[in-house]
Amino acid sequence: MRSRQLIRDMIVHYLGNPILNELDDGACLSFVEKDLVFTTDSFVVRPLFFPGGDIGKLAVCGTVNDLAMMGAKPRYLSLGLILEEGLLLADLERVVRSMRAALKAANVKIVTGDTKVVERGMGFGMFVNTAGIGVRFPNADTRVVNARAGDAVIVTGTLGDHGAAVIACREGINLESRLVSDVAPLWNLVGPLLRKNVDIHCLRDPTRGGLAAALNDIAESSLVGIRLVENKIPVRKEVRGICRVLGLDPLNMACEGRAVVVCPGKNAAAVVKMLRSRPLGRNAEVIGQVVKQPKNMVILETEIGGERIVETPMGEDLPRIC
Amino acid sequence: MRSRQLIRDMIVHYLGNPILNELDDGACLSFVEKDLVFTTDSFVVRPLFFPGGDIGKLAVCGTVNDLAMMGAKPRYLSLGLILEEGLLLADLERVVRSMRAALKAANVKIVTGDTKVVERGMGFGMFVNTAGIGVRFPNADTRVVNARAGDAVIVTGTLGDHGAAVIACREGINLESRLVSDVAPLWNLVGPLLRKNVDIHCLRDPTRGGLAAALNDIAESSLVGIRLVENKIPVRKEVRGICRVLGLDPLNMACEGRAVVVCPGKNAAAVVKMLRSRPLGRNAEVIGQVVKQPKNMVILETEIGGERIVETPMGEDLPRIC
Repeated sequence: MRSRQLIRDMIVHYLGNPILNELDDGACLSFVEKDLVFTTDSFVVRPLFFPGGDIGKLAVCGTVNDLAMMGAKPRYLSLGLILEEGLLLADLERVVRSMRAALKAANVKIVTGDTKVVERGMGFGMFVNTAGIGVRFPNADTRVVNARAGDAVIVTGTLGDHGAAVIACREGINLESRLVSDVAPLWNLVGPLLRKNVDIHCLRDPTRGGLAAALNDIAESSLVGIRLVENKIPVRKEVRGICRVLGLDPLNMACEGRAVVVCPGKNAAAVVKMLRSRPLGRNAEVIGQVVKQPKNMVILETEIGGERIVETPMGEDLPRIC
Repeated sequence: MRSRQLIRDMIVHYLGNPILNELDDGACLSFVEKDLVFTTDSFVVRPLFFPGGDIGKLAVCGTVNDLAMMGAKPRYLSLGLILEEGLLLADLERVVRSMRAALKAANVKIVTGDTKVVERGMGFGMFVNTAGIGVRFPNADTRVVNARAGDAVIVTGTLGDHGAAVIACREGINLESRLVSDVAPLWNLVGPLLRKNVDIHCLRDPTRGGLAAALNDIAESSLVGIRLVENKIPVRKEVRGICRVLGLDPLNMACEGRAVVVCPGKNAAAVVKMLRSRPLGRNAEVIGQVVKQPKNMVILETEIGGERIVETPMGEDLPRIC
């Protein structure tokens, strides 16, 4: 119980707000809006701390971004911690402080939580679950079923930074220049598009399985094809380097602060301009288009003029990158 | 990815519904009600299967009950699974089927979820997180701050069955008669009280730390005292036996299908009658009363005519009983 008290105090100390501080069995929330979005994600990343972030920032941004991709303004999060005995309190504090910063950046609150401590020796340190409630924008329908031939495919920034940074950190790969995870809350980037009623067909964050998984999901759900132009796809040279060393494909690498935006081709330039006006979107690019045929497929026009099929990664995921 | 596909298919197969089946980044929900309750709980019980339940049933009931204790009708759950490589698919299927039965009994749906698989060798099999959204009953204020001198303290059934059943199973203690966990969804028991506008001051489920923790929480939050009459407290003889063998106090043992109900003394008989009219409440009893003094304390009038202070369990919790 003493440890529970300590944790409670640490969490209330750093993450407290009038709703959370009630510390009751649940949080009482009032909404004037009728249409909500509800989502959840568990985070098992290893190591707990990596260049550009940690499991706490990831747990806040991951759930905030799932809400944002559904066209919902993130409002409230729950926090479920599973801590391993022996976890350093200093590490827990560092994670909780990082959460606090991410919550502030995303303008959301943790309003209810639960902490379990399990016996030492499993070697995971901590797992984090967040669930989230957001308020859906009127008329926002950004589901993966809405892509149509003629749409443009846009990414809001460089791809694979998160996956590459975590793997490099875990494998002890030294980089000349500093590569950091892209983990960031996306609502401030995509919210303005929805607020201004820009016609957006799909939003998806390319997390597990990277761009390849996200685009195949869109192609299959919308019964369309997608053609990509390789030399338009923004990938940092450090990410390319790590992928080359480890035999990985940058298109399969997870991002935690990037979105795929599908919109009518005629709006693409305006959308890219809006995205680039914010720091998080300054590397936004049109990387391809939605086509009628071949359906359910993603085709990459390579830099050397060939074509290849981009498949959903079928082997095991890169382990524990989120 | 193949394992993810399989899990997704298993979860959709057993737990599917039109909202979950969208398998998007989140679930779109519509509410006509303004006042919602949001809660979360993680479950790390070991063993995964125990007499009367398993981690799946527990994960559904635990969150449903947190909502019910807040005076909210449980509506939607999220499901976060962390699976250890090597977990038998048959065990996962058994857990998911058990969830399905509990969801049906509680009349709630899982509408969004996430599954992570982590490497083999940690030895936990699986952890489960559920978050839940419920609709708060108009005028229901069942928080622990509302107890007043003169109130009756009622429990809805025998205490400690869950904790004792899990510990006995884990320790290999053989029981002459079969003791099973009390894990059950409580909304069907307490909902009718709220629906009929019965004057209820507090609702609390005595989970971790048992009755002792729940009542101390009420006493401290409401700045009152609580006097209990030991021979009114329903405890099964098997639970007493296990506690005697292991040196545990039945008042500290977790329940997962019991509620503490605090209501004005004059209504106590009627409340007990209503509770007893349902199978889950057939052993309901008035076990004590709320008093002005001594504040912040729970006092037990023992069977042999003495008095003792019932403290919040201060050592470590019984490990991994929920």
